[in-house]
Amino acid sequence: MSNVQFKKIALIGIGLIGSSLARVIRERQLAETISVSTRTSETLERAHALELGDSYTTSPAEAVRDADLVIVCVPVGASGRVARDMAAELKPGVIVTDVGSTKKSVIEQMAPALPDNVHFIPGHPIAGTEHSGPDAGFAQLFQGRWCILTPPPGTDEAAIEALSDFWQACGSMVDRMDPDHHDLVLAIVSHLPQLIAYNIVGTADDLETVTKSQVIKYSASGFRDFTRLAASDPTMWRDVCLNNRDAILEMLARFSEDLASLQRAIRWGDGDKLFDLFSRTRHIRKSIIEAGQDVDVPDFGRHVAVTENQPEN
Amino acid sequence: MSNVQFKKIALIGIGLIGSSLARVIRERQLAETISVSTRTSETLERAHALELGDSYTTSPAEAVRDADLVIVCVPVGASGRVARDMAAELKPGVIVTDVGSTKKSVIEQMAPALPDNVHFIPGHPIAGTEHSGPDAGFAQLFQGRWCILTPPPGTDEAAIEALSDFWQACGSMVDRMDPDHHDLVLAIVSHLPQLIAYNIVGTADDLETVTKSQVIKYSASGFRDFTRLAASDPTMWRDVCLNNRDAILEMLARFSEDLASLQRAIRWGDGDKLFDLFSRTRHIRKSIIEAGQDVDVPDFGRHVAVTENQPEN
Repeated sequence: MSNVQFKKIALIGIGLIGSSLARVIRERQLAETISVSTRTSETLERAHALELGDSYTTSPAEAVRDADLVIVCVPVGASGRVARDMAAELKPGVIVTDVGSTKKSVIEQMAPALPDNVHFIPGHPIAGTEHSGPDAGFAQLFQGRWCILTPPPGTDEAAIEALSDFWQACGSMVDRMDPDHHDLVLAIVSHLPQLIAYNIVGTADDLETVTKSQVIKYSASGFRDFTRLAASDPTMWRDVCLNNRDAILEMLARFSEDLASLQRAIRWGDGDKLFDLFSRTRHIRKSIIEAGQDVDVPDFGRHVAVTENQPEN
Repeated sequence: MSNVQFKKIALIGIGLIGSSLARVIRERQLAETISVSTRTSETLERAHALELGDSYTTSPAEAVRDADLVIVCVPVGASGRVARDMAAELKPGVIVTDVGSTKKSVIEQMAPALPDNVHFIPGHPIAGTEHSGPDAGFAQLFQGRWCILTPPPGTDEAAIEALSDFWQACGSMVDRMDPDHHDLVLAIVSHLPQLIAYNIVGTADDLETVTKSQVIKYSASGFRDFTRLAASDPTMWRDVCLNNRDAILEMLARFSEDLASLQRAIRWGDGDKLFDLFSRTRHIRKSIIEAGQDVDVPDFGRHVAVTENQPEN
């Protein structure tokens, strides 16, 4: 695949996603220059030290000047402010996109602030880790993952194609979707799992009958899987909850309803019902592995890593 | 560490745990002979083909004859039957242990059936993967993991020491605990996470507004983490639910209460409360990694494996 040519890409926000983009853009030569903007001067200095871009500024307006592609990589609650800050300096015909985990709210915040002569194509790469900040990024983050674009009706097809080509050059596969449907899909595949993980870790942390050290020592029996998600960036996830409220509440309600039914089966010793549920969930993992969306090794491949790091007895 | 010497170890049940024990016993020469017993002749044949033992039988009584150590590795609901089946053939002074995920119920099932002249020391290695069956085991499974022993009051100290030495030779660290407390601790670190995972995968599977293919495609955003636990052996987990009911119901009630409070914070847009919860759960993962109970790489180290398996663009 030939490299997508942008003369200048502006990254507004340089956390896990922004800094991963910086690295893959550099590695695959997807732009001549990269400008980096972030809110705090400490993060900006760190980005500079990591040589993530060619120019650095705390001003989004300055960063987007002359850019052909602007990628907003901030917590979704900050999208509106960024759009207003940079609007006046956007060059006509520039593609403006974002990487936010909610789409309806981002569109509501950004669209009114942006001039009519730019191509605004909201986006969401389905990729991440539990780490955050400019040090956490890596060029392979998007490899094999999906990126969802939610262009408003009437968006220039050539611009959508150019942005799709860009994400493909980053290693992603690209889908298009309506923003409402995106928010519903993400509520079940991402936002609900995240909330459940935060919640169970909170419940364990609050127990007075089981000590924290016991939770930690015996976490390999299941609990530790949840702590990964629960170590994610709190600002990002607060903003997701505040900006995808209705879809999240809908999924939470369904989850709780199902959990009440499971609880009842346990209380009444309904072994057949438990066995049925526990059997039918098994095939989904198989499908996910077949689709290339998880690794085909037991325990996420952790045992290999653990064994290598353990002292011999 | 010198090898623990047992002349003959009997493994009753040869699934993930039993077959991992067989492999580590062989590899580290922890017994002169291993007898393998399992309920179905198909599994027995598979164990034979994998050369997991020295003798093979579908009769627990036959397997335990002359054994110095008997390890029962069956779903906890089958413990009582196994104890009754093998009781008459147990040699005086033999150590009888198990690997079940619940301890109070296993003791209630097994203790009455066992003769007084054996050392019954219930146990639980906190180790596993989502795979099951004799092919799923591996010798490193117990390396760096805890094994909890719940010996009844008055148990012979030398026997407890011998069993502790055995588990340490398998790579484990050994703790002792009261069976009631074990069941409470495991309810939060293992049984609740497992049920939550089954439940959320069930909820996603039932949705009529989001297709199964969308759930699979976008699962890398969080959901896939839960599918690993939800791929675990249904029989084992049905039995756990039926055999640790009270502690599980207590933990489910606390989890649901906390979830209702989180739901309310989302409904009312209480960003501070969300931020507080999402921040305080972060440190637990750090402690788990420091305790050597999870790997210190982002995303459980999956990105490395995925990248290596992906075709280049």
